[in-house]
Amino acid sequence: MKSTKKSNVHIILIERGEKIVEQLLAYCKKNKISAGFFCGIGAVDQAELAHYIVDNKKYSSKHFKEPLEICSLTGNVSIMDNEPYIHCHATLGKENFSVVGGHLKEAVVHAVCEIYLCEVSRKIERKHQERIGLNVWEFK
Amino acid sequence: MKSTKKSNVHIILIERGEKIVEQLLAYCKKNKISAGFFCGIGAVDQAELAHYIVDNKKYSSKHFKEPLEICSLTGNVSIMDNEPYIHCHATLGKENFSVVGGHLKEAVVHAVCEIYLCEVSRKIERKHQERIGLNVWEFK
Amino acid sequence: MKSTKKSNVHIILIERGEKIVEQLLAYCKKNKISAGFFCGIGAVDQAELAHYIVDNKKYSSKHFKEPLEICSLTGNVSIMDNEPYIHCHATLGKENFSVVGGHLKEAVVHAVCEIYLCEVSRKIERKHQERIGLNVWEFK
Repeated sequence: MKSTKKSNVHIILIERGEKIVEQLLAYCKKNKISAGFFCGIGAVDQAELAHYIVDNKKYSSKHFKEPLEICSLTGNVSIMDNEPYIHCHATLGKENFSVVGGHLKEAVVHAVCEIYLCEVSRKIERKHQERIGLNVWEFK
Repeated sequence: MKSTKKSNVHIILIERGEKIVEQLLAYCKKNKISAGFFCGIGAVDQAELAHYIVDNKKYSSKHFKEPLEICSLTGNVSIMDNEPYIHCHATLGKENFSVVGGHLKEAVVHAVCEIYLCEVSRKIERKHQERIGLNVWEFK
Repeated sequence: MKSTKKSNVHIILIERGEKIVEQLLAYCKKNKISAGFFCGIGAVDQAELAHYIVDNKKYSSKHFKEPLEICSLTGNVSIMDNEPYIHCHATLGKENFSVVGGHLKEAVVHAVCEIYLCEVSRKIERKHQERIGLNVWEFK
């Protein structure tokens, strides 16, 4: 992983073989980022996508193991239990150009993953909400 | 709907059962937002997607009624007839991880919808353009 | 193509019949943009998508010729060989709402394409990296 920044914009390159969510999380911890959003593109060759149903309060998930273009990587950073928390969704394009997508649990970079993360210098907290079974933003 | 902001960045949580476009529009009216772009993720359980063909000057649309991850929600705010106007496209991920997408007419939140809206403090106007049958940005 | 801007945010309208990557590139050259990211929506009626496999160091590509909604257009600007360089991925929605996606080589606008480009006032360079066969960000 390599990075550079200009004021509140972090430009992050995640490299072949590295895990996207793990690297983003480590970056946010190291740089004490407590809120912001990011957009990215690139390619992965392993990914775990998840889909949530409130009625079951359960994620179902599926592993993909093939070269996939990251058509879109969209997400945000918040704070849960005093630590940065990454929430990230993605659309992934197959060799036949069909697309799969969902909540991105983790993915391993195939070629590169290029991310622009716009930091917001305030704290957005997330707390578990029993009603829907997820960790939800709580604004103060 | 809950929200917070830091300078020109609005952080918006649309909650279970609420309509995304309706809530975004109400938020922009209340906060007098006249330009900006937004990115979001989340999940919906009802959505109406549309697809436009210039030759017919017609949108065809389809309703989806199932839990769908919002893989990407991308759009912008402008002003039409002196009121804020939301233009929004989305990709939605099904339980089998296949993806549908298009112009998002409206969608009802399933779990949450988390949006970062970057306001631009100027007025971007939209006017109906007969040639293509759509409401198009007009810069002055 | 029409455009307006407010501080570091460029608001770009690419019009019916124009090529997206060509227009974005011309805009960045004219405005001496050397880094930034963009998000866009709109519709195209011709597009060439590509998919890369590192093992072959080759892009395979496919042409689509039909009205397609741009569900998401995500990308960034950098500098390669002293010239602006556009890297852009997209998801495109068909009339039946299925989605194709990948690396966007080029696309011709059907109705409009609305882009917000956030410029970062520094130079992000890209150099060919033999190991993966692609042009990769090099931070200094």
